[in-house]
Amino acid sequence: MLPVITSARDIKQKIKDFRTNALTVGFVPTMGALHEGHLSLVRQAKRENDKVVVSIFVNPLQFGKNEDFSKYPRTLERDCELLSGVGADMVFQPEPSEMYPPGFCTTVAVERLEERLCGKSRPGHFRGVAVVVLKLLHLVSPDIAYFGQKDFQQTAVIKRMVSDLSVDVTIKILPIVRNAGGLALSSRNAYLSETEKIDALCLYQSLTKAQSMGKAGIFDARKIAMEMEEIILARSSAIIDYISIVHPETLEDVPEARSGNVVAVAVRIGKTRLIDNVILS
Amino acid sequence: MLPVITSARDIKQKIKDFRTNALTVGFVPTMGALHEGHLSLVRQAKRENDKVVVSIFVNPLQFGKNEDFSKYPRTLERDCELLSGVGADMVFQPEPSEMYPPGFCTTVAVERLEERLCGKSRPGHFRGVAVVVLKLLHLVSPDIAYFGQKDFQQTAVIKRMVSDLSVDVTIKILPIVRNAGGLALSSRNAYLSETEKIDALCLYQSLTKAQSMGKAGIFDARKIAMEMEEIILARSSAIIDYISIVHPETLEDVPEARSGNVVAVAVRIGKTRLIDNVILS
Repeated sequence: MLPVITSARDIKQKIKDFRTNALTVGFVPTMGALHEGHLSLVRQAKRENDKVVVSIFVNPLQFGKNEDFSKYPRTLERDCELLSGVGADMVFQPEPSEMYPPGFCTTVAVERLEERLCGKSRPGHFRGVAVVVLKLLHLVSPDIAYFGQKDFQQTAVIKRMVSDLSVDVTIKILPIVRNAGGLALSSRNAYLSETEKIDALCLYQSLTKAQSMGKAGIFDARKIAMEMEEIILARSSAIIDYISIVHPETLEDVPEARSGNVVAVAVRIGKTRLIDNVILS
Repeated sequence: MLPVITSARDIKQKIKDFRTNALTVGFVPTMGALHEGHLSLVRQAKRENDKVVVSIFVNPLQFGKNEDFSKYPRTLERDCELLSGVGADMVFQPEPSEMYPPGFCTTVAVERLEERLCGKSRPGHFRGVAVVVLKLLHLVSPDIAYFGQKDFQQTAVIKRMVSDLSVDVTIKILPIVRNAGGLALSSRNAYLSETEKIDALCLYQSLTKAQSMGKAGIFDARKIAMEMEEIILARSSAIIDYISIVHPETLEDVPEARSGNVVAVAVRIGKTRLIDNVILS
């Protein structure tokens, strides 16, 4: 049985025990409802560390008032089975009251980065992400922490925070895992109806278009975005939140899409908000 | 010669070397211009740890636009002599560009606590304190970090931040060191003229009054504050910033001054802003 730790004190003690035995620790923070994307992180962590800790915490601070905190899928038993199967050594699954006891009032903001892209329609989201990730890094003090590229802005915010605050950890970002049609795996895909799942393919199709335009020598970011928009809006259930081509670190819009820039989209498919991105090669 | 480390990379390496040898580390963060207050922290750190690291960093982020960042006393050579004398093992003295390289954009806010007392007249000050202390704690990763009670609000902010973010360090607060007349030692006392030094005694005199009123059974915070005000305003060069009686953790004003509450004052003596406090017994 995979040990499930729920208290901050216990996880610190377990990590201390690992350290006493000179074991390296890989860490995969998640909100549960695990899919193959998460599992790819755990597998990589297992290859690169002696022990792998996975946190499962649906973090209230990163959900807006009208967002899906209460209905976010919670599938702990299945998650633990999946994690056992890929060699995770320990699950840290704290209650919100354990992470944010009464009187909690510390905020971490990665200014500028938090305001762009998803930050516009999700104010406060990246402060919630930053504070929970920083706290988890303190509790687990891993050698390496793993994140998926799908939440590209999140990875940029975390890398900046870790660098700015000199947190002693290596951050690794692993590629997006997609289904056969190209849809980026996401816990929120569970919200999609069958027809919405087909409509949702437009995100990746638009990103593929951007990638191929770049290869064909078309660099004008506006032109690329217009072509992408056309692909997305051809789906009746799709409402565009943003289509952006940005610098990978500053997340600032670039006028010319060049190798290393990131094309990022956020689209509502019915009631479900999906994001996806590609790094231009 | 006391080793002076200036780069983040080097201090991390030195600390790693200490850890490899299973040595405990005490840490005293300062802005230099050291006085007996700082030295009392170093002495205590030396008694309780194998190695003592002292940082000297006049942190630009905690100074307001019209404050004394550029004229803040810098006395590195003398500081190092004093630190050698009390057994410090290492000085970390980074440049601002080392602590805050281009693109730095992370803020740490301890909300509510940062707004009270000094926060009202020094907006942004405690965010600067929080971010620098957190970064220094990451770089030095001490077992115990030592702070002086004189900056009472600072100690409350740091304790709250460390607790909220589960930073793996023990915070110790040591008593205020005063001169023979009762003036709390401060690097900013260097700004005072001889007559101002005498006027500045009113801070402690007012605090002593508060303490003795409590002992005489007078608990009404307004009454105590009025008596304190009278003592301070009897000095021609004194302008009161605040007189507050607060809860030691929330820093909220209390109507009745009871044991454990903190009486805190901020007073301008001429152009110099001084602070002081007592914990009611």
